[in-house]
Amino acid sequence: MFMHNKRLQYTVRVSETNPRLATMMLEQFGGADGELAAAMRYFTQGLGEDDAGRKDMLLDIATEELSHLEVIGSIIAMLNKGVKAQLAEGQMEEVELYRTFGTSGVSAKEALLFGGGPALIDSAGVPWTAAYIDSRSEPTADLRSNIAAESRAKIVYERLINITDDPGIKEALGFLMTREIAHQKSFEKALYAIEDNFPSGKLPGVAKYANIYVNTSQGEGDTNGPWNAGGQWDRIDDLTQTMPIDGGDGTASVGLSSAEEVAAAKLAARTASNPASNPRTGVDLGAGPGAGRTTDADLGGAEDIASAPAFAEANPPASVDTLTT
Amino acid sequence: MFMHNKRLQYTVRVSETNPRLATMMLEQFGGADGELAAAMRYFTQGLGEDDAGRKDMLLDIATEELSHLEVIGSIIAMLNKGVKAQLAEGQMEEVELYRTFGTSGVSAKEALLFGGGPALIDSAGVPWTAAYIDSRSEPTADLRSNIAAESRAKIVYERLINITDDPGIKEALGFLMTREIAHQKSFEKALYAIEDNFPSGKLPGVAKYANIYVNTSQGEGDTNGPWNAGGQWDRIDDLTQTMPIDGGDGTASVGLSSAEEVAAAKLAARTASNPASNPRTGVDLGAGPGAGRTTDADLGGAEDIASAPAFAEANPPASVDTLTT
Amino acid sequence: MFMHNKRLQYTVRVSETNPRLATMMLEQFGGADGELAAAMRYFTQGLGEDDAGRKDMLLDIATEELSHLEVIGSIIAMLNKGVKAQLAEGQMEEVELYRTFGTSGVSAKEALLFGGGPALIDSAGVPWTAAYIDSRSEPTADLRSNIAAESRAKIVYERLINITDDPGIKEALGFLMTREIAHQKSFEKALYAIEDNFPSGKLPGVAKYANIYVNTSQGEGDTNGPWNAGGQWDRIDDLTQTMPIDGGDGTASVGLSSAEEVAAAKLAARTASNPASNPRTGVDLGAGPGAGRTTDADLGGAEDIASAPAFAEANPPASVDTLTT
Amino acid sequence: MFMHNKRLQYTVRVSETNPRLATMMLEQFGGADGELAAAMRYFTQGLGEDDAGRKDMLLDIATEELSHLEVIGSIIAMLNKGVKAQLAEGQMEEVELYRTFGTSGVSAKEALLFGGGPALIDSAGVPWTAAYIDSRSEPTADLRSNIAAESRAKIVYERLINITDDPGIKEALGFLMTREIAHQKSFEKALYAIEDNFPSGKLPGVAKYANIYVNTSQGEGDTNGPWNAGGQWDRIDDLTQTMPIDGGDGTASVGLSSAEEVAAAKLAARTASNPASNPRTGVDLGAGPGAGRTTDADLGGAEDIASAPAFAEANPPASVDTLTT
Amino acid sequence: MFMHNKRLQYTVRVSETNPRLATMMLEQFGGADGELAAAMRYFTQGLGEDDAGRKDMLLDIATEELSHLEVIGSIIAMLNKGVKAQLAEGQMEEVELYRTFGTSGVSAKEALLFGGGPALIDSAGVPWTAAYIDSRSEPTADLRSNIAAESRAKIVYERLINITDDPGIKEALGFLMTREIAHQKSFEKALYAIEDNFPSGKLPGVAKYANIYVNTSQGEGDTNGPWNAGGQWDRIDDLTQTMPIDGGDGTASVGLSSAEEVAAAKLAARTASNPASNPRTGVDLGAGPGAGRTTDADLGGAEDIASAPAFAEANPPASVDTLTT
Amino acid sequence: MFMHNKRLQYTVRVSETNPRLATMMLEQFGGADGELAAAMRYFTQGLGEDDAGRKDMLLDIATEELSHLEVIGSIIAMLNKGVKAQLAEGQMEEVELYRTFGTSGVSAKEALLFGGGPALIDSAGVPWTAAYIDSRSEPTADLRSNIAAESRAKIVYERLINITDDPGIKEALGFLMTREIAHQKSFEKALYAIEDNFPSGKLPGVAKYANIYVNTSQGEGDTNGPWNAGGQWDRIDDLTQTMPIDGGDGTASVGLSSAEEVAAAKLAARTASNPASNPRTGVDLGAGPGAGRTTDADLGGAEDIASAPAFAEANPPASVDTLTT
Repeated sequence: MFMHNKRLQYTVRVSETNPRLATMMLEQFGGADGELAAAMRYFTQGLGEDDAGRKDMLLDIATEELSHLEVIGSIIAMLNKGVKAQLAEGQMEEVELYRTFGTSGVSAKEALLFGGGPALIDSAGVPWTAAYIDSRSEPTADLRSNIAAESRAKIVYERLINITDDPGIKEALGFLMTREIAHQKSFEKALYAIEDNFPSGKLPGVAKYANIYVNTSQGEGDTNGPWNAGGQWDRIDDLTQTMPIDGGDGTASVGLSSAEEVAAAKLAARTASNPASNPRTGVDLGAGPGAGRTTDADLGGAEDIASAPAFAEANPPASVDTLTT
Repeated sequence: MFMHNKRLQYTVRVSETNPRLATMMLEQFGGADGELAAAMRYFTQGLGEDDAGRKDMLLDIATEELSHLEVIGSIIAMLNKGVKAQLAEGQMEEVELYRTFGTSGVSAKEALLFGGGPALIDSAGVPWTAAYIDSRSEPTADLRSNIAAESRAKIVYERLINITDDPGIKEALGFLMTREIAHQKSFEKALYAIEDNFPSGKLPGVAKYANIYVNTSQGEGDTNGPWNAGGQWDRIDDLTQTMPIDGGDGTASVGLSSAEEVAAAKLAARTASNPASNPRTGVDLGAGPGAGRTTDADLGGAEDIASAPAFAEANPPASVDTLTT
Repeated sequence: MFMHNKRLQYTVRVSETNPRLATMMLEQFGGADGELAAAMRYFTQGLGEDDAGRKDMLLDIATEELSHLEVIGSIIAMLNKGVKAQLAEGQMEEVELYRTFGTSGVSAKEALLFGGGPALIDSAGVPWTAAYIDSRSEPTADLRSNIAAESRAKIVYERLINITDDPGIKEALGFLMTREIAHQKSFEKALYAIEDNFPSGKLPGVAKYANIYVNTSQGEGDTNGPWNAGGQWDRIDDLTQTMPIDGGDGTASVGLSSAEEVAAAKLAARTASNPASNPRTGVDLGAGPGAGRTTDADLGGAEDIASAPAFAEANPPASVDTLTT
Repeated sequence: MFMHNKRLQYTVRVSETNPRLATMMLEQFGGADGELAAAMRYFTQGLGEDDAGRKDMLLDIATEELSHLEVIGSIIAMLNKGVKAQLAEGQMEEVELYRTFGTSGVSAKEALLFGGGPALIDSAGVPWTAAYIDSRSEPTADLRSNIAAESRAKIVYERLINITDDPGIKEALGFLMTREIAHQKSFEKALYAIEDNFPSGKLPGVAKYANIYVNTSQGEGDTNGPWNAGGQWDRIDDLTQTMPIDGGDGTASVGLSSAEEVAAAKLAARTASNPASNPRTGVDLGAGPGAGRTTDADLGGAEDIASAPAFAEANPPASVDTLTT
Repeated sequence: MFMHNKRLQYTVRVSETNPRLATMMLEQFGGADGELAAAMRYFTQGLGEDDAGRKDMLLDIATEELSHLEVIGSIIAMLNKGVKAQLAEGQMEEVELYRTFGTSGVSAKEALLFGGGPALIDSAGVPWTAAYIDSRSEPTADLRSNIAAESRAKIVYERLINITDDPGIKEALGFLMTREIAHQKSFEKALYAIEDNFPSGKLPGVAKYANIYVNTSQGEGDTNGPWNAGGQWDRIDDLTQTMPIDGGDGTASVGLSSAEEVAAAKLAARTASNPASNPRTGVDLGAGPGAGRTTDADLGGAEDIASAPAFAEANPPASVDTLTT
Repeated sequence: MFMHNKRLQYTVRVSETNPRLATMMLEQFGGADGELAAAMRYFTQGLGEDDAGRKDMLLDIATEELSHLEVIGSIIAMLNKGVKAQLAEGQMEEVELYRTFGTSGVSAKEALLFGGGPALIDSAGVPWTAAYIDSRSEPTADLRSNIAAESRAKIVYERLINITDDPGIKEALGFLMTREIAHQKSFEKALYAIEDNFPSGKLPGVAKYANIYVNTSQGEGDTNGPWNAGGQWDRIDDLTQTMPIDGGDGTASVGLSSAEEVAAAKLAARTASNPASNPRTGVDLGAGPGAGRTTDADLGGAEDIASAPAFAEANPPASVDTLTT
């Protein structure tokens, strides 16, 4: 059961209002790596967890993240306090109000739709979605996801610190950033407290495919490193060996019932394309006489852009000649 | 630049069609941890990466994941081949066709909207979204995200193997699952090939908050472990120390201009609530005379559920009097 | 700041596992009117609220809703406990496991992707989105939204009670349902504790349009009631009076700069349609000779469905002549 | 059946083009409280409604909202008329065109993707979603939702009026705003024309939980008001009484079959964490030697931010020893 | 199987960094008509296609679109290269960094969340969704969708060219735009290589409804053209002929079982509205005394906006009387 | 301005209720190719259109589609009429009600959340989104999109007809399907009434890239057809010619300011990977001793799946040595 105390986990001192900075702070309120995502990630894992230690840890951190959601939300509320009141009371000239948030679509939505209240959207105005949460009920995978999530949240706080010059906000963000570091450490400890944690789950891999590195991207820039070279890897550079890798013919097939075969044959016949045809098409009908399609000489850097006649000519018999000469 | 060969990376042999199993396989085609998510995660990271080794690795693995997308998509196409043809040709009785996919909403969408073709939706019919991709342009965070993503994908393949009894599908899934293991190993190597990879980014944390563990969830079930106890941690059990943790007063404040203050005061006055009032409300208007609200004795296990008169009594004579006088 | 105790607000006793019932309970976990929506609705309003009484109430109820999220999530975790373990351990025959959740796409996603853990999706597998939250930072609007939200949540709980026969679940749902009723009462009191709460906001309406009821849907079924008839309404039945209602000409116009006028004229000329033409179209090219398009006599109830020749005849000889000459 | 007349319900006179103002107007075209949401909310309710009076009213108002969608869409089309033509015709210098909408992401999308046409997105460019519609097929809930929706729409129009200084737009918005007020009145009348409308639905609440107010948020700021105090409420301040409120032990449990128990035990054993361990983790591997992590003295307001050595020290020699021995 | 070469299909030369222009280029990276949409559209069609020629063509073009995704993504990476490094290294003054992307919400998200990496979002920051893909497994429909998609992509590239003055970008965009033209030609050929391609699918239409044009929008502006007039059309101007068009009574009905009828009757009775009532409503309770609602004389253009007393007057004495007697 | 008549455009006669069939019909109510998508597609185009003929046609067809939305919605309401009443009144045994819609997640959401009312979701329960609408304000692109959309909608209706055996529904669907055919014809006429309609927009393509067909997918299955062969095409089979196609070096580059160069260099140095390292990684820490990872002999078809020891061996003693020395 949750309880709440009205004091924040960290005191928030904002120097002056700034609705545009508020929209940037939204990234950690209703954004992909924001505090709601963190809280819900750990809370849902905690609910489904049976291991006592992990359950306790997940609920501890989930609850703290809710308190962080409150801190960042309070920062946003402070930054928006002016525009909220002035918009609600119609206290400024229209044109001034419009300018206050007018050059940013997100500030506009924050003001017009949400009235300056902290909304669960990101810095581009996209509503928070549970698609951000990647809990899978397998602790060795979930803990890795949590480690990664804390690492990402740390970075986003760092970037927000880098664009803020309000000392009170900077300090609060520094606190929040640091807590992500501490949480990452906890999740690392919990992962390695599961003795056999790799690979995740129960099924082992197929031995013959487990150490192969396929060099699918080739050309200048091919580089060796511990991720693709050394004793742990069998690297495949000749890609024909992987077409397919199993030694079969690389096709897909399925057994059909006789009724299915009949239907499939009818479908094939009905929708067959005639590769020997040279049909007249909608494009042929629609390519104009070219009168209005002169080369746009201003298209800097692409001086050889085709005039429309090239297209008209490119379709019928005549045009082949035109093109190839 | 990408090139394609029509042979698959792994030969696909499906015993018989099964549109419902097809919808489950969609989880790894258009699902959150599916192959498109994997391919696009690494591809977008690769495009923005300047480190030669990591760029090469990311493009290698991205390209391989595209080939896996093709394998899992081919399995889905095979499993749906019957329903696709029979629905298109109207070859079965209506009622038979309806039954073929009729008990699952997702099969219905797969058949009715997508006609049995492999669609970029998950096993519940939700379209794939780039919200699944958590690349952040910071390699120490991205590589951790990649490690976690491979770990999750491995688990989802394991579950699909556990519900499939078609040997050809099982074998192909085993191959795909194993490749996720190999990719995880590559990403781990790449992470630790960055010497100083923790914490992510450049800014260090605030020392005094970095080793604190806040025991925010208390009561029976509190457990010690390396994630919250031992020499690396300062654990706080007395939560009043964290209200707030910075020694301030735990409130949020902002400096307002005088115009903002005027507007805020007007807004406060206009929307003030009167805590001393006992207003008659819409609920008072709407709670019926109770005649029709007898206790529902059949509501097994909640025998004491209130009859509506309880509500009428709760908003009682006094307030009615207030109105009518 | 939030705190947590591991005891639930309501004890959860589930008789037996049932993954399909679990997916239905998801409606109140990650659904549109579920407990996360409730908690976040009130929490975000509370953060932005300056009125002491409303702020206190919003935070009280938000916190309680988080505890309800925990209760409903625990029910889901219990209902899924069997499928989670059996899928993870591969303890059943494939085909049995498949059948356990196999006929419902949502159960499949719950099992395959989320491994049986409580996920923030609704009963159809759609991820929770903050688009469900309609807070607007205007208390007289927000409180009405809260009243409506509680009313909706009450109904969804009622429906869940109606399809459940597990007494422990029924009892817990009865508790949760009742709390929504209590919350609605609080929000009603808070709304009417704002003396002047209608219309919302500060600007009054335009007097001459405020009491008009436009009877835009006509024909059999037109009904009078207090919503469109009586002394409070001026009803318009003759719709020509509303084309437009302001007495103007009912068009839309804008002042253009001369440069804009030039561009607009060029655009109009370039994309002008020729209403006097009778162009041959892609459809004319594509309508087959009709040989394969016989009337489908089995299309019960629509025996006169056109054969393809009808279409061929509809795009007739004349245009063919035009083309071939 | 719907019919249409080309005259608008309100004449639209826009002084001059302004693509940025257009994006703000989108809030009421494709936004959460916009006219499409209103029209579809009432239309879908009307289709499912059997009560003659409510059905008539819902279809009347739904149809009027479609006409309002047309009015607001026409305003947007007018405001964008210049940028549409100039972008299509390439009539301006690139850099001028870019500046015209260049500072707002939403204007960019409006211009680049939608070519200046009215699109069903909100002021931040997010596509309209039916997730905004909260119809539940229970009239006492739906009418409350409609009341709230009209109240919200009124506020958004008020805000748009407050940022617009074009008199023609202001006048049209004033009309649209006023109609929301009138609609709210209709829905209120319809709600209270259902005699017993609270609580929604058929099931009464559980008496003993119906009048409780749980003071879950405590500390300075606790306030009394009619929503939590007075004869209608039993307020709980001692939260231990609600852990749990039912007098049970506050845990969650489920009956498992023996096969489920076996699987659960295996799962628990396989994923057990060892709380007595002090494992070396990825963080220990990755925390650098600290050389490059000096205190960032420029991080204004957080002068005591930890240097990286703090982290190195926190994961210290001891654990390395543990590993290597 | 896919392979990759590190050389791009088109060389990318960007003159200077420009994060705002980068966000506009996102339209063709993660936008609705961008290259991922194109690649996935054709790739998923190709996987499900059995016709050899179409399958080959779809895979050819899908693969080329992936290479285009790489080209446009590389442009974005180059445009963001400065902001990425400066934000990561904290090399600029906070306020400078903030200004660099500060006026556009999308630039903010690109920088703060994605760190300047190419992200699969559109120019308004909305994540790419597979809802953009409209493949239906019917080649005559899919090819038309492909033709339309290429036509749209061509336009978006044209608009991007019109706002760019960097010659290297312009040239690359010109190449990409031209390829869409070529692809459209291929799809047109493939459509018309299916001899009988209209109407799509197998079932013919119902003859008597196939040539009707219903003039549902009437009034000034009614125009004749080949789409509604001429020998191919039977135009209906008198709309009463279409209420309904089948000659029935235009109602909807369903056969109910007796149990269903009982339930329906109970539902109707329970939720019946009383059209003869004149209920006092929440609005009556909430409309203030008008003291604070004076006409806002500044609401330019709507000088006759109602003062609140108008509303108070519209509701009161009469209805109160009705209630109290 | 819109008007409405309560008679439907087509009489709806449903034989008996069927909530599962109702969920399938949702595909054309709130689905991607459903009637709302159609109506809004043409309506938004019509609002932005200046050409009188096209504007008239778009508004005509948009309005008719709204009437079709009403017809399909009425079918859904009829099919759900039983479950709606029985769920609302709690008239059936819990278990019966549960079974009525219990095996399909979408039916569950339709019943539990929407109470059986027609909701703007598709057959998988996904809410309608304006992302389905692809209007671009360029008539030659929009008309092609409309043609494709009608073609798709035709197919979805055909599939619904193929799974329905209720003659009244079949007949109504036949009508709706036929209207899509008629609308396609109108849009084709309108497209070709624009004389010069290919390529879309104003800018011509670059001549040298306009007739190239790149054979990017090679291997068995390569096929010639009018889409890639013949006089209109220059086919490239040797893909090295396209790396890059412009004759440059196929790289991406950007001009950086000196400050940007400094930052980029610092970023590169800080995040450099060391390709010569062989770091110990998290995987090395986490791969268990193999004791518990025996080959799963039951994994039918993949008998050679690796035991965990294979992984332990792959990350072997050697690397530990490397680390500790």
